[in-house]
Amino acid sequence: MHDFGHLLIVLVAVLVGTKLLGALAQRAGQPAVLGELVAGVLLGGSLLGLLDPSEAVIQSLSELGVLILLFEIGLHTDLRSLAKVGGTATTVGAVGVLLPFLLGYGAASMLGVERLPAIVCGAALTATSIGISARVLADLGELESTEGQVVLGAAVLDDVVGLIILSVVSGLAAGGAVTALGIARTTAVAIGFVVAALVIGGLVAPPAFRQVDRFQRTGDVLGPIALAFALVLAWLAEHSGSAMIIGAFAAGLVLHGTPQRKAIEKSITTLGHYIVPVFFAVVGASVDVRSLAHGPILLIGGTLIVVGVAGKVAAGYAPWWFRGRKLLVGVAMVPRGEVGLIFAQLGLTTGVLSVELFSALALMVMVTTFLAPPAIGRLSAGRGRSHPTPSSGVAELVTGVQPE
Amino acid sequence: MHDFGHLLIVLVAVLVGTKLLGALAQRAGQPAVLGELVAGVLLGGSLLGLLDPSEAVIQSLSELGVLILLFEIGLHTDLRSLAKVGGTATTVGAVGVLLPFLLGYGAASMLGVERLPAIVCGAALTATSIGISARVLADLGELESTEGQVVLGAAVLDDVVGLIILSVVSGLAAGGAVTALGIARTTAVAIGFVVAALVIGGLVAPPAFRQVDRFQRTGDVLGPIALAFALVLAWLAEHSGSAMIIGAFAAGLVLHGTPQRKAIEKSITTLGHYIVPVFFAVVGASVDVRSLAHGPILLIGGTLIVVGVAGKVAAGYAPWWFRGRKLLVGVAMVPRGEVGLIFAQLGLTTGVLSVELFSALALMVMVTTFLAPPAIGRLSAGRGRSHPTPSSGVAELVTGVQPE
Repeated sequence: MHDFGHLLIVLVAVLVGTKLLGALAQRAGQPAVLGELVAGVLLGGSLLGLLDPSEAVIQSLSELGVLILLFEIGLHTDLRSLAKVGGTATTVGAVGVLLPFLLGYGAASMLGVERLPAIVCGAALTATSIGISARVLADLGELESTEGQVVLGAAVLDDVVGLIILSVVSGLAAGGAVTALGIARTTAVAIGFVVAALVIGGLVAPPAFRQVDRFQRTGDVLGPIALAFALVLAWLAEHSGSAMIIGAFAAGLVLHGTPQRKAIEKSITTLGHYIVPVFFAVVGASVDVRSLAHGPILLIGGTLIVVGVAGKVAAGYAPWWFRGRKLLVGVAMVPRGEVGLIFAQLGLTTGVLSVELFSALALMVMVTTFLAPPAIGRLSAGRGRSHPTPSSGVAELVTGVQPE
Repeated sequence: MHDFGHLLIVLVAVLVGTKLLGALAQRAGQPAVLGELVAGVLLGGSLLGLLDPSEAVIQSLSELGVLILLFEIGLHTDLRSLAKVGGTATTVGAVGVLLPFLLGYGAASMLGVERLPAIVCGAALTATSIGISARVLADLGELESTEGQVVLGAAVLDDVVGLIILSVVSGLAAGGAVTALGIARTTAVAIGFVVAALVIGGLVAPPAFRQVDRFQRTGDVLGPIALAFALVLAWLAEHSGSAMIIGAFAAGLVLHGTPQRKAIEKSITTLGHYIVPVFFAVVGASVDVRSLAHGPILLIGGTLIVVGVAGKVAAGYAPWWFRGRKLLVGVAMVPRGEVGLIFAQLGLTTGVLSVELFSALALMVMVTTFLAPPAIGRLSAGRGRSHPTPSSGVAELVTGVQPE
């Protein structure tokens, strides 16, 4: 009873902190997720000491939060949209994964970081936050522009590739040796799981959810059953050597094409408003603010920021045949947001990253997430501003904005 | 990590079990909550052994679930509606609390139950499930009839009085002696807390929520902040000697009059679809099915069912001046639903009730909840059936039906 009373206070602090700082961030023209992270930093062990990321219930809610977020990202991802935006987006996406990875791995190695944590640093740099990129472009009325479409397509590709990288890194972190064969095997398992989930799920889920939809007379049975489906795939992914969030993401991809998608997305998005911030707050609380002031951390963090920005901006110039605003495309790929944090968090919980390296990565995520929106705004100047029209529940979960 | 994997499987079982059995119950013309209870019984220790009510995360989610449900009930309760339906509803409500309490206490005492558990038995019999009553009446097109209005008003009064009784019982269960002074003091604390919460909250909450509403540019900040408000009042209630659910209920009453109520109710109801069933499943899992077959349990349970039905039906006849269908009013007050379960659960967790007595009460709740809907249907026959129009998010949470 006493423990539950304490849990109530922690939940109140997390809800009020993330929502108010999120709204404050929005007022300052920043994505809400930034405010949620800052709330976590304030509540965490290095400052107020109220939010303990290792507490069982908080940890479970946080892990549920990230599964819900990835499920939502999957629900919103249309694999065919990749094909439509074609070669340009694919090139930007592929270069935007490869270049930051190599630059990040190389820079970390040169600074004396060991092989496995250096790989995690490189992997974290590959991320692009589709939620933040989409939201910022929508705010600027750029979502329907050619550049906006390229960024969206590339960000989707980044998500898929990033999750495979994540699975590889998870496998490595779990003790696998860093061999070409091991990487190939882990990649095969990750791809194999997604393919199996998409093929089997694609056959089983649509008729099953049609039945659920018919079976329920009225009311919200679809949302909870869809969540259960995502949790089952997350469990299966974990037990087949892949990562839980890949399972949740695959569940979203499978349900993307069903007629029930809209109802599911609406319900899951509302649930996410309560639980996803716990994840961001826990990530923020895991940052040791005091360690940021150490010289080596600032050095590594600063270096990762430089190569992280450079790698993504260069990716915007990779499709040489593309006649649009390449700098805009590249800068729009810069914010790492929640995906970068997932990498960093995974590295921390598996023990691959020290708290200092984790803090350096969190610094990189915060700075890239923070810098990109005003930069995109400058590059886009001259185009008419339209009303915010966030394109998805993902953007809503990340930014706290509801689609109109 | 392993524990979280197990939690995923338990959550999947709870979500799928409660939603499918809930929908099945609806198909059979029963309220969904019945199916959710049965799902809990099936998953619980006496059968499948998958759902352990004492597991920390499950217990926390279950307690959050009941707080969310009571918050929702409060959000839907308009104290002025009591005044409108006037003396008839008040008389039915008052007699419907007093008579079942005295009958239940007397019957339990005569069967050899000790004083404190006998009081809990009597208290559990006072409950009326406003959610189930409202839903059943709506299904039958009776919600707008005079009888429907009387039942609604009486059920609201029952909720308020029932919560005070609950608080008294909580105080007694926590070790207070069963003295008139003690009861008066606990009643004063319970009433004092609700009055203080209503007065102070009524002054502070509307401008605060107006600010939150203005402050958020778009998106769902209101729902999570409202939940935080409810959790704060729950915590305050607990620490001022009242019960947590009274705090959550008072928070709902306070926010009932704000212009933001609809937005809050919509968001909280969706959240409740995921978390409230955990409470019902946990209550179901707490029932020891094997103990139901014991003679003494069947005797006590059967006796409580008889006096529980008789007390509420008699209450329908209490307002002698009322010219409507008194039997219909009385029978509509019979289902105990979630409120009766809260009493039983409180008795169990505080150690006042043995598992056998708890099971007898759960049997009473199940039977009264199960019997009432078809009985009301028979009594209402001849009136035209209209489309189901559940009147509230409360009904939705209890029955799984969304307002149209």
